[in-house]
Amino acid sequence: MAEIIDIDDAGDPRIAAYRDVRERDLVGRQGHFIAEGEVVLRVLLTRAVHRTRSLLVAANRFDSLGDLLARMPADVPAYRAAPAVMDAIVGFHIHRGILALGERAPMPGAAELLAQLPEEALVVVGLGIANHDNVGGIFRNAAAFGAAAVLLDAASCDPLYRKAIRVSVGASLIVPSARIGEGEDVVTLMERHGFVPLALSPSGATPLAQLARPARAAILLGTEGPGLPAGVMARAHTVTIPMAHGFDSLNVATTSGIVLYHLSQVAKRRHDEEGAPSAS
Amino acid sequence: MAEIIDIDDAGDPRIAAYRDVRERDLVGRQGHFIAEGEVVLRVLLTRAVHRTRSLLVAANRFDSLGDLLARMPADVPAYRAAPAVMDAIVGFHIHRGILALGERAPMPGAAELLAQLPEEALVVVGLGIANHDNVGGIFRNAAAFGAAAVLLDAASCDPLYRKAIRVSVGASLIVPSARIGEGEDVVTLMERHGFVPLALSPSGATPLAQLARPARAAILLGTEGPGLPAGVMARAHTVTIPMAHGFDSLNVATTSGIVLYHLSQVAKRRHDEEGAPSAS
Repeated sequence: MAEIIDIDDAGDPRIAAYRDVRERDLVGRQGHFIAEGEVVLRVLLTRAVHRTRSLLVAANRFDSLGDLLARMPADVPAYRAAPAVMDAIVGFHIHRGILALGERAPMPGAAELLAQLPEEALVVVGLGIANHDNVGGIFRNAAAFGAAAVLLDAASCDPLYRKAIRVSVGASLIVPSARIGEGEDVVTLMERHGFVPLALSPSGATPLAQLARPARAAILLGTEGPGLPAGVMARAHTVTIPMAHGFDSLNVATTSGIVLYHLSQVAKRRHDEEGAPSAS
Repeated sequence: MAEIIDIDDAGDPRIAAYRDVRERDLVGRQGHFIAEGEVVLRVLLTRAVHRTRSLLVAANRFDSLGDLLARMPADVPAYRAAPAVMDAIVGFHIHRGILALGERAPMPGAAELLAQLPEEALVVVGLGIANHDNVGGIFRNAAAFGAAAVLLDAASCDPLYRKAIRVSVGASLIVPSARIGEGEDVVTLMERHGFVPLALSPSGATPLAQLARPARAAILLGTEGPGLPAGVMARAHTVTIPMAHGFDSLNVATTSGIVLYHLSQVAKRRHDEEGAPSAS
């Protein structure tokens, strides 16, 4: 059970990490992150590799969170503040009334992470995904369809940014993730670890429905508009999602969902057939 | 070619519709809407049923929009303002540097719209979709996969709200749309027009991959969390997207994308088989 500490003064040094949340988000938090909302907090406390350092909860939300607070380690303080004090600390109104300060677990290198994955694994690779909604959406879909990891290049944004965590519904706290080094060649990296690189693009050669599932596959996604770099497209298996004439435009997170859905179904069919050979 | 009018004063009454954009968005715009960005504007000018009433363009963006301005009817003014003046008018910085004022075309009733659709048609029906990103995402996917219309209930938000238009990349300006009346029964409405109601839910009975495509189908989507009303679920064909154990959570717009993708593929297979019977 967490230790409950009442906070009456927005200037209290014990809750300094929660002060002016947006401004601190922009500056970046060394080694930490802020998570918000009950659903995300439940993921953080029960399933994430990251440690929870403290909570800040609006007094009027406290009772409804009883079971969650009971799960907290005794050395993690839960700061309780009147809603007006909480708003004054944070700098805007938190209508979910609950924030957590997390401590980032060390992130493995991309090669290290890939080497640890099972023999059958799907990974999603984002190149230049600079929008937090899209990064959050990609993690959410990765979790929903059981992808083993999400890799991001240096130009993609931080999956532990508050908004990315929220949009991912906590998935960015639990799906294993790594950064691809700035000079590292993505296609070479994937192939070296036995991952078939699948480059998604409106100009891709293979329609998604015809895509078989390799044991290890890497779904490569680029920015909307420019798309994946030509050097990646030229060396990967290019895949396209057929669309209506005149509006061939999908959001990148939605694209990840459709591709992951397709590949999860292909795998399922294969398992069903293996499991019940007499049925086919 | 549009008439170009230079605006030097943020208080100029001719650009009153662009003043304090966010505040006016919140109040609601009778009969009008604001669209932003070049891609969206191109859709508005070339493919939408809605009329463009005027443009407001930052002076430093003017030259790059030459071909678009050339397409404008002569009676539509293009107001040109220095970036600082534009920001003062709008109330925040418009980095795309281009806004349009549109006039809403009359919206048909739901029954009227359904009656006009072709014999083979997919429609998406959103119930309680109160988030502009999700409404925008649903329209974008509807356009990408050739859905014939999007219907929304009274609790769903306005598809011509500025952010919904932007997230839809203009699709909410072109995909036919109607409101379901507040007392109207969705399932009855759909069935009366020959649309098979397909209710998407994590607890749905039919896995998506096994879903055949009816000639006329309505994809019913509810809010995240509570989902579709029990009364709708009980009377519709319920469909589920199988997900990984322990994280069965998809964004509602992503769900629309996956379902539309699946149904577009089912239709495609059927057409392919009809077109080339000897191949099967």
